[in-house]
Amino acid sequence: MHIPDALKSEFHSQLDTASAVIHRHPQPTLKNELVQLSEYAQESDTRDSYGQGGIVSEFEEQICELFDKPSALFLPTGTLAQCVAMKCYSEASGKNGVGLHPTSHLRLHEHDAIQHLWGLSVHFMGEAQRSLTAVDITTLNPEHVTAIIVETPMREIGGAMPSWDDLLTMRAWCSQHNVRMHLDGARIWQATEYYQRSLAQIAELFDSIYVSFYKDLGGIFGAALIGTDELIKPARVWSRRAGGNPITLYPEALSARKGLESYLPKMPDYVEFTKTLTDLLSSAGFEIIPPQPKAAMFHIRLPCNATIAAEKLVDYAQQQGVIVLPLPRAEQDDKAICEVSIGDRALEQAPEFWIRHLSACFL
Amino acid sequence: MHIPDALKSEFHSQLDTASAVIHRHPQPTLKNELVQLSEYAQESDTRDSYGQGGIVSEFEEQICELFDKPSALFLPTGTLAQCVAMKCYSEASGKNGVGLHPTSHLRLHEHDAIQHLWGLSVHFMGEAQRSLTAVDITTLNPEHVTAIIVETPMREIGGAMPSWDDLLTMRAWCSQHNVRMHLDGARIWQATEYYQRSLAQIAELFDSIYVSFYKDLGGIFGAALIGTDELIKPARVWSRRAGGNPITLYPEALSARKGLESYLPKMPDYVEFTKTLTDLLSSAGFEIIPPQPKAAMFHIRLPCNATIAAEKLVDYAQQQGVIVLPLPRAEQDDKAICEVSIGDRALEQAPEFWIRHLSACFL
Repeated sequence: MHIPDALKSEFHSQLDTASAVIHRHPQPTLKNELVQLSEYAQESDTRDSYGQGGIVSEFEEQICELFDKPSALFLPTGTLAQCVAMKCYSEASGKNGVGLHPTSHLRLHEHDAIQHLWGLSVHFMGEAQRSLTAVDITTLNPEHVTAIIVETPMREIGGAMPSWDDLLTMRAWCSQHNVRMHLDGARIWQATEYYQRSLAQIAELFDSIYVSFYKDLGGIFGAALIGTDELIKPARVWSRRAGGNPITLYPEALSARKGLESYLPKMPDYVEFTKTLTDLLSSAGFEIIPPQPKAAMFHIRLPCNATIAAEKLVDYAQQQGVIVLPLPRAEQDDKAICEVSIGDRALEQAPEFWIRHLSACFL
Repeated sequence: MHIPDALKSEFHSQLDTASAVIHRHPQPTLKNELVQLSEYAQESDTRDSYGQGGIVSEFEEQICELFDKPSALFLPTGTLAQCVAMKCYSEASGKNGVGLHPTSHLRLHEHDAIQHLWGLSVHFMGEAQRSLTAVDITTLNPEHVTAIIVETPMREIGGAMPSWDDLLTMRAWCSQHNVRMHLDGARIWQATEYYQRSLAQIAELFDSIYVSFYKDLGGIFGAALIGTDELIKPARVWSRRAGGNPITLYPEALSARKGLESYLPKMPDYVEFTKTLTDLLSSAGFEIIPPQPKAAMFHIRLPCNATIAAEKLVDYAQQQGVIVLPLPRAEQDDKAICEVSIGDRALEQAPEFWIRHLSACFL
């Protein structure tokens, strides 16, 4: 997939002026984001010192409560959070293998860090085009695998989610075979509606959890690794080794806390909106992945290639001031695939508004 | 060395209200720092996307010009910058060893990341209590060593610096033996007066350079790795593997740029002040490390242990509203060692002011 740079850059400049945008939350200029953050900060908020004290420690405690786990570590990225967790599990168990779905972030977006940097080996489970199931993980040899990473919602397949029953069966298998079960919960905030359980109830199934603060929650950047004291203590050492322990992460912790307050309570609305919108889109003839989304995101496969799709998006934005989709993130069989995360920007309009504009742009 | 937590915390609360503080630059509350940063940001400043574009790329170009090198990479920490550089050199050369002074940050503050995470081996050169010399590096076997790290000013010994002649001889040895010469330039901003050369002229001696933006320059956090395209290209891959490539680093790049504008031009004043101050302190009977500082920092060895020194600092701050030294960072033979970096806070007073208060507190 190749979208010309000029198109991308025109798309981004349209983003700044569009009257309606379907993807995620409003994104202020960086200047305005800093103004908002400075207004949000309290005089009583203080810096951490290399992750100790101040709002970083306070925020870690807040995350522990939310997920009902003993310990949490605020980190710059999910790449670091998950690799560190796997390294700690490997050291504790003496086993070197990690079970991954073929669409795992560790496989697709980290230059094989888990192997090349962290010295672990990857064992694939499940199939790229569908959700992970309990049967998939039984293909692993628990003698070699220290932990599995279970992602839900599964980003690369449009936010599809393993069923709760499957998660329970996976948990039982992991407990039986002394394998740690780790949640790639970058977007777990979207999952409580589908599972009809709280974040803490979902977390109870897992030995550890990674969550992201800049995607659904609108933070600047940042992630947390959540789990037992036995995990988080060595994780602090490994994150320092990896250069992930700057003198402070206060702007990021502050914006993460702000995002949690602003956006987490609205997740049920985003999920509801997603269902209505994608039902209407399907009826209008659009191809949605997964066919009936249950999270606050979905993919849409367009009847044209990525460059043509990008041209249409840009032309439409120029003419109508409406951005109906983000730029394509993939292309399959000459069909562009766009990923939509539903947040405050989509909700500023009725679902019918989006159907009208999406249809006018693409059908 | 153990300083009771209650003392530390009282020291930090005195820091917020003291009328004079000798160490570094004024530190606003995080709320006020965000206000200042939002005022400093221009509407035309834009975010990077995973380190590409926006003010991060612009800032990298600015750093390239300042050091007259082809390529630069803005990173969260120096730990990451230096380990990544060593890893890239090792991959390019097929050699596994790194030459380090015994006081290198990589030895003292990174939980042996260079070995445990990056898989490299350490070869020590020189002696802990004195500056690195050209003779020291000839103890290395260039068959095994891919690069040496030369720190100047040398933080752990009070900012002492290898001589220019020694640097030239090291450069010749490295070139002759196909060993890369890397500058740990966390505080290189302080070194131009001593060497009577510009940053670019100093950089010319080195294959690559790490600089820090939050120490002398007052940024929030952040570092840069500077060197050739052949280094920086794989360094981008390795930094992503290590989780050091968040979706944006704009608050940090912005504050680094601001710090560079505010504080870099004042380095000669800080160095001059340091010389005057430490001459007077020596005359007053204080033990200064190194005896005649040439950088904008020094260590002072106090005639009491660390806890007593901390008590005296806190008592004095409570009574006089003046903080004459930072908390001790080490203790040798029951004598506390404090590290002072001279910045805008010290310069708010005349050197005689500090001599008077330091003497009243400790003599």
